[in-house]
Amino acid sequence: MPKAEILDPQGQAVVRALHRTGVEGVADVRQGKRFELEVDDSVDRAELEKVAETLLANTVIEDFEVVVEAAGEAQ
Amino acid sequence: MPKAEILDPQGQAVVRALHRTGVEGVADVRQGKRFELEVDDSVDRAELEKVAETLLANTVIEDFEVVVEAAGEAQ
Repeated sequence: MPKAEILDPQGQAVVRALHRTGVEGVADVRQGKRFELEVDDSVDRAELEKVAETLLANTVIEDFEVVVEAAGEAQ
Repeated sequence: MPKAEILDPQGQAVVRALHRTGVEGVADVRQGKRFELEVDDSVDRAELEKVAETLLANTVIEDFEVVVEAAGEAQ
């Protein structure tokens, strides 16, 4: 997700659209990316953190979080 | 996230990039959007589901999931 201090024009556009459609009570919206990777046991958390940091996130403007779920646990 | 039956070219591009950088063991990657909305108590789950379905997701090609967290719980 965009870092808290980074302006998020996409999120602000959603806030305005919500207000236009009459949805009140929304103070802020942040829009980011979500990746779901299907991996085998050879890929551990450390490698996933490295993949996220070097390939999937732009760490200058984005924070990222790695959540590991066992097969079948995924929502 | 893109529906399972939908081709995900962005996800496939990430799979190829991972293989090029020597990361093995990644069977599939799906890339989607994540929105974080900061709302007050006047906005209930039903309204969030409606916002997600009508404004934030393209339900023809995307599935969506609403997760409600109390203030301070957010990761």
